[in-house]
Amino acid sequence: MNRITLIGGGLSGSLMAVYLAKRGFEVNVYERRPDMRNNRISAGRSINLALSVRGLRALSKVGLDEEILKQAIPMYGRTMHPVEGDLAYQPYGKEDQAIYSVSRGLLNIRLLELADEYPNIHLHFEHRCIDVNLDSATAVFVDEQGTEHTVTGDRIIGTDGAFAATRGRLQVTDRFNYSQSYLEHGYKELLIPPAEQGGFRMHKESLHIWPRGHYMMIALPNPAGDFTCTLFFPFEGEESFASLQTEEQVEKFFKKRFPDAVPMMPSLLEDYFTNPTSSLVTVKCYPWVREDKLALLGDAAHAIVPFFGQGMNCAFEDCVILDECVERHGNDWGKVFAEYQELRKVNADAIADLAVQNFVEMRDSVGNEAFLKQKEVEHELCDLYPESYLSQYEMVTFTNMPYSEALSMGPVNQRILNRIIQNKIDLKDESRIKAIIAEEKAALNGR
Amino acid sequence: MNRITLIGGGLSGSLMAVYLAKRGFEVNVYERRPDMRNNRISAGRSINLALSVRGLRALSKVGLDEEILKQAIPMYGRTMHPVEGDLAYQPYGKEDQAIYSVSRGLLNIRLLELADEYPNIHLHFEHRCIDVNLDSATAVFVDEQGTEHTVTGDRIIGTDGAFAATRGRLQVTDRFNYSQSYLEHGYKELLIPPAEQGGFRMHKESLHIWPRGHYMMIALPNPAGDFTCTLFFPFEGEESFASLQTEEQVEKFFKKRFPDAVPMMPSLLEDYFTNPTSSLVTVKCYPWVREDKLALLGDAAHAIVPFFGQGMNCAFEDCVILDECVERHGNDWGKVFAEYQELRKVNADAIADLAVQNFVEMRDSVGNEAFLKQKEVEHELCDLYPESYLSQYEMVTFTNMPYSEALSMGPVNQRILNRIIQNKIDLKDESRIKAIIAEEKAALNGR
Repeated sequence: MNRITLIGGGLSGSLMAVYLAKRGFEVNVYERRPDMRNNRISAGRSINLALSVRGLRALSKVGLDEEILKQAIPMYGRTMHPVEGDLAYQPYGKEDQAIYSVSRGLLNIRLLELADEYPNIHLHFEHRCIDVNLDSATAVFVDEQGTEHTVTGDRIIGTDGAFAATRGRLQVTDRFNYSQSYLEHGYKELLIPPAEQGGFRMHKESLHIWPRGHYMMIALPNPAGDFTCTLFFPFEGEESFASLQTEEQVEKFFKKRFPDAVPMMPSLLEDYFTNPTSSLVTVKCYPWVREDKLALLGDAAHAIVPFFGQGMNCAFEDCVILDECVERHGNDWGKVFAEYQELRKVNADAIADLAVQNFVEMRDSVGNEAFLKQKEVEHELCDLYPESYLSQYEMVTFTNMPYSEALSMGPVNQRILNRIIQNKIDLKDESRIKAIIAEEKAALNGR
Repeated sequence: MNRITLIGGGLSGSLMAVYLAKRGFEVNVYERRPDMRNNRISAGRSINLALSVRGLRALSKVGLDEEILKQAIPMYGRTMHPVEGDLAYQPYGKEDQAIYSVSRGLLNIRLLELADEYPNIHLHFEHRCIDVNLDSATAVFVDEQGTEHTVTGDRIIGTDGAFAATRGRLQVTDRFNYSQSYLEHGYKELLIPPAEQGGFRMHKESLHIWPRGHYMMIALPNPAGDFTCTLFFPFEGEESFASLQTEEQVEKFFKKRFPDAVPMMPSLLEDYFTNPTSSLVTVKCYPWVREDKLALLGDAAHAIVPFFGQGMNCAFEDCVILDECVERHGNDWGKVFAEYQELRKVNADAIADLAVQNFVEMRDSVGNEAFLKQKEVEHELCDLYPESYLSQYEMVTFTNMPYSEALSMGPVNQRILNRIIQNKIDLKDESRIKAIIAEEKAALNGR
C-alpha cells in the first residue's frame, strides 16, 4: 500500500523520490533517457539554470543546498549590452541577494546520486512510458530492448516534463481542461568560451542581456569560465530564424546587432548552424490529480517559458508543498493530492503569466531609459523600506511568497512608483512614502 | 491536382462537398458513422438545432434554404418559465425575424442526398480516420471490416468535429496552439411529447427557457408536436447531476424547480436515467491550415458551447467563406487556405466567447427583472432606430456581420442602454438618442 511509481527522473522526479523515500515509501522511478551519471561529458555544456530562493529551500530539505551553491555562480544583477554605448547594470535585490547559475546536468546527477543512497528508491533508466491505467495506478513501459513492463503501484506521480505521457493519458478523459500556447519566438543556444588565457570574457557575477526590442540574447556564466548564450528570436519575419539562412546573413546580423558579443564568440557560425532551434511553450491543465491514484508535478502539470528563471524553482516548490501535504494527511492520498492541487494550481498559473510578462521586460523595457530610471527608484525604495516595499522580482526570486500574490502585487507596485515619480516625491520623506504604499496596498485588498 | 479528401460527412462536411463539387473538384468524403439515410428512425428524436441567417445564407447557395424552412419551426422569441408566477416573453428581433428549429438528422440527410446527386462526389461511410500525413495529403482509414485504406489526394479538409482526428494530427506538430476548456456544467436531453390529443403542449413558435440562476432547462419545438428539452446542469455540487442519483431525488427536484414542466414530461424518469450526461467544451486552436495541404473547418477548428445557437451556423459560414476564397484564388490553395484562416480565426474566437457569455444571460439574467426591463428598452430602441441600433443578439443571429464586430459592440450597446436608462431619456427623443449612439460608437473606433 506504500508503493509509489514516479514517471520521470529529471530534476523534480529525483528530488520528489528522495522526499518520499525519507517518509518511508517504496519508490520506483522510471526515466526514459539513459542514466546521465554514465554520460557526464554532455553535462558541462548543457543548459544552465538560475537557482533562487524557492529552489534552494527545496534542496535544503535534503541537505544539498550548500553543496550545490559551491558549484554555482552567483549573479547579483543584470548587465545590459546596448548596440552602442556603455553597459548598464541593475542589481536584482539587496546587496547580498543573487540568483545562482547552475548546470542542469550536474544538479540532476547529484540528485540521482542522492536518490541511489536510499534502499527504498529504485531507479530504472531507458524505460519509456507508453500507457497509464488511471484506475489501477498501473503504468506500462518499454525498455531499450523493446520489452514491455507493466508496473502496478498504489499511485503514480507524473514528473515527465512538458510533453508528459502521464498528462497525455489524462488529456483523453472527459472534462480535462488543457492548453498549449506557443510564443512566436524560438531559442538557440550559443557559446562564449573562456578567454584564451583562461577566465571569463565578461563580468562573471551577472546575467548579461542584449535587449533588442522584439528579441534578445542572454548569457549565463558557467564555472569553467564560459557563458551559455541563448538567442530568443522570432521564427518568422524580417529579423528571424527564417531570415538567417546563410553564414553571411548570420555574421552580418550578429555584427550589426550584437557588435560587442561577436568577438567573444569564435564558434558562432558553427554553433548557430549546429544547435537546434527550439520552441517556447506554456502548458496549463486541470485537474492535475485523479483521486488518490495520480498526480502531475513540475513541467508535466505546468510548463512555463524561461524568462523569470522559475521553471525549476517552481517545480521544486511543488515537491515541497506535496511533501507538506503528505506530512499533514499521512497516507490519506485522496486528501494529499486534493490539497496539493488546491495549493499549487493557482500559483502555477500565476508564474506562467509572470514569465510571459517578463519576456517583454527583458527584451524591450530594459533597453528603455524611462524604465531604467523607474527601476532605479524602485531599487532605492526597496533599500530604504525593506519592510514595506518589495519589488515583484524580489517577491518571485527572493521570497517564498505565493506566486499568485506576487502577480497581483504587480499593478500595486506600478501605481506606487507612478505616484512617487509623477509627484517627484523625495524617497527619504518616510511618512509620505509609507502612506502611499499603505494606501495602494489597502486599495488592492478592498477590490 | 483536383482531388480533395473531406474527412467527416456531418453537416459542414456534406455542405462543403457540394460547394467544391459545383466548382468541378473531385471530392471524396469519408465518414466514420454508417449512412444515416438508412437509419432514419433515430433522426426524429435527435437533437434539434437553431438555424439562423448565416446558416440560411449557406443553404441558399445550394438551393436548399426554402425546402429546409418548410420542415422547420420558427421561434420568434424566448418564453421564460419562472418557478412561480407568469410566463415572460422576449421577442428575438423585429416582428418577422425568427430562428428556426430544425432536426440535425433531417438536415444532414438532405445534404447527403444532395451530395449524392453530384457524380464528382464519392461518399464513403464507416471509414474511420486513423492517420493523416500532412506533407503528402494522405489519409489512412479503417473500415468496418477492419481493413485499412490509404487515400492520397491533393489536399485534405478536416470536417470531423470537436474531437477531430485531423486536428489531433496537427496537435503533435511543433508550435500548434491548442486549448480545450470545459464548463462545469453538463447537459442531458429530456422530452415533452405531443399532447394526448396531438399538438403542442406549450406555445409552439418560441424557445422555452426555465432560468434557474446557475443552471437552466430549455425546450425547442419539433414538427411532430414534441419539444426536445435540454437540462444544462452542474456536474457537481448541491444541485447537480452528482446529487440526483435516485428516482425519488430526480422527481422531487423537478417538481420543486420545474413545477410547470413536470406534468408535461411523462417519461421524465426514464429519460433522465436512460439518456447520457454529456460535457460542454470550447476548443480553440491555431493554425487551422497547413500550407496548401490541409485545412480544418467547423467544429474541428473551433468547437463552441451551444448557448448562442451558432455552432452549425458558424460552421456553415466557414464553408461560405472558404468557397469565396476558392472563387478569388482559384486553384492556388496556399492562398485559399491562408485567406480562409485569416478571415475566420478571429470570428471563430469571437463566437466562442459570445456563446459562453450567453449561457450566463440565459440561465441567470433572463430571470432578473432589471435585465428584462433593459431588454424591453433595447427592443424598443431596435424597433425605433433600426438603421442606428442593433442588439448584439440581432447582429449574431439576423445579420452576416463578422462575429468579432458583434463581440466588440457588446460593451458599446451596454453603455448606450445605461445612459438611456440612468438618465431616463425618452426613447422618442430622436436627436438625443442618435447622439448617444453616435458618441458611443465613435468612442469604440477611437480606442
